[in-house]
Amino acid sequence: MEFDLIEVIRSRCSVSRADVRLGIGDDAAVLSPPAGHDLAVSTDTLVAGVHFPFAASARDLGWKALAVNLSDLAAMGATPAWALLALTLPDASRDFVAAFADGFAELAAQHGVALVGGDTTRGPLNVGVTVHGFIASGRALRRDGARPGDLVFVTGTLGDAAAGLRCLDRADSRAPELFNAPADTREALVARLNRPLPRVSAGAALRDLASACIDVSDGLLADLGHIAERSGVGIELDAEALPSSSALLALFERDERLVLQAAGGDDYELAFCAAPARATEVQRDLARIGCGATRIGRVVEGERVRLFDRDGSELVFERGGWNHFG
Amino acid sequence: MEFDLIEVIRSRCSVSRADVRLGIGDDAAVLSPPAGHDLAVSTDTLVAGVHFPFAASARDLGWKALAVNLSDLAAMGATPAWALLALTLPDASRDFVAAFADGFAELAAQHGVALVGGDTTRGPLNVGVTVHGFIASGRALRRDGARPGDLVFVTGTLGDAAAGLRCLDRADSRAPELFNAPADTREALVARLNRPLPRVSAGAALRDLASACIDVSDGLLADLGHIAERSGVGIELDAEALPSSSALLALFERDERLVLQAAGGDDYELAFCAAPARATEVQRDLARIGCGATRIGRVVEGERVRLFDRDGSELVFERGGWNHFG
Repeated sequence: MEFDLIEVIRSRCSVSRADVRLGIGDDAAVLSPPAGHDLAVSTDTLVAGVHFPFAASARDLGWKALAVNLSDLAAMGATPAWALLALTLPDASRDFVAAFADGFAELAAQHGVALVGGDTTRGPLNVGVTVHGFIASGRALRRDGARPGDLVFVTGTLGDAAAGLRCLDRADSRAPELFNAPADTREALVARLNRPLPRVSAGAALRDLASACIDVSDGLLADLGHIAERSGVGIELDAEALPSSSALLALFERDERLVLQAAGGDDYELAFCAAPARATEVQRDLARIGCGATRIGRVVEGERVRLFDRDGSELVFERGGWNHFG
Repeated sequence: MEFDLIEVIRSRCSVSRADVRLGIGDDAAVLSPPAGHDLAVSTDTLVAGVHFPFAASARDLGWKALAVNLSDLAAMGATPAWALLALTLPDASRDFVAAFADGFAELAAQHGVALVGGDTTRGPLNVGVTVHGFIASGRALRRDGARPGDLVFVTGTLGDAAAGLRCLDRADSRAPELFNAPADTREALVARLNRPLPRVSAGAALRDLASACIDVSDGLLADLGHIAERSGVGIELDAEALPSSSALLALFERDERLVLQAAGGDDYELAFCAAPARATEVQRDLARIGCGATRIGRVVEGERVRLFDRDGSELVFERGGWNHFG
């Protein structure tokens, strides 16, 4: 049984790489890392009912399982190379596995990622992926390099995935209205939730420009909080500057939007810091690869992330809404 | 919550290595593989109720989750270096995680393995480990190198872990008898089940001696079947030669014993092939590291694994017992 399923997956993941000496089918993969490079390695698990609805399509799930991991590599500035997949399934549905593998393979092919190892197990649905990427030695983008005076940026737009989740939630307070929204608007948001695009090229472009970088998975404030903590700095954000997609603007008023953008998560954009002298290069190099970036704040002396309204008062997220503070 | 649990684990896993440039706490670990070496990478998942009883101790579970993965590296002849842990837990029990981490860390320390990444998630218990080891370029032990004329060996003894499982099974046909067996005999078998010892040194010693190697996880016949298939050969085994521990001999008669040894699994011994000219070196080099190895058969032209009785007739495992064939 298990071997069959691995074959179903392997036959669909067709990227082959010269640095894979031995792929799936032995006790371990044998890989040749390039000389002069560090290896970035990350593992992320998706659990049904926690990271995706039980009703998520297998194909989207395969895509997303790889996407969230490639997003971690992007945040390090690493170039993706190899992945391993640990798939725990309640039953051995060949169709589910084939669709899952198709979604996984579609994204893997876009980034030249070879699937080099796997394990399929019987049990409650659980998707574990481990990814490997390369970075020239010592040039990884880290969380601990932000310095007071740096500017804070984010790629793309924020809040769309969290908005997509609300569009799917039948228990949402605005469910009837969101269900009746124009199909293309809804779909644009749901696509951000189900098919996140890891910012791999942006991460590579930022390797020599950013002082610190993280991917936005848990929500902008929480993730920038990790940079603040690891760098020993404070971060001040301008609520008005947080970038919005037209779909988000169409369906959500400002206060709701700000919740989705600052605390929603699942964006898989890159939030990063850079010295003011690099700001022009940052914008130019990201524009060159078709990735927008918005300046959303600044690094200061201090120790936490604070969000400021246009009138200069601090916005504090409490009990599901925003309160002005000070 | 999640970060706290990772801290509980990290604080217990104290191996530090110069080749870990950046460990737990960023988007990815940053690692420096040694020049001139290949990287062996393997991932294995343990699921409650499938790979271990729900009642297994957290400490044993932590040990075993790493052990089964190190066993895969051992089978490649690789020297373990780095591990990542993806732990899915139904609730955030700090005690469970601490005990799990202690078991994991105890084995990691024995092999100098650094925990470089992790992910803790809420959901049904699922333990995913990914391990990395080094092998001088091109010298990995593979499954596909067995040639007709080679001898077949296995390290240690077979069947103990499967016997340990029977000792714990209240529904076993011989449960009253097995429960009343001498405590040290029972415990020796159960320890093989709960605390397998990956044959890392043996794998390293075999790097230039074995023509093919695999770890015995699914059962000797099944695992040697992978060598036979990948190498395009047949394998003949002598039932009489399969090595038994004194504990196994004390509690199980020959026919039962043979089921446990040939089909039981969870042994985590190494089964390997070597040219007859290397047989003396194999025994000598393994003896030097305190690892016994037993010659159990030979590689032939053909395509499957066959087990022969002392009278030369083939033994076929059918409906829970052995039948003579031909």
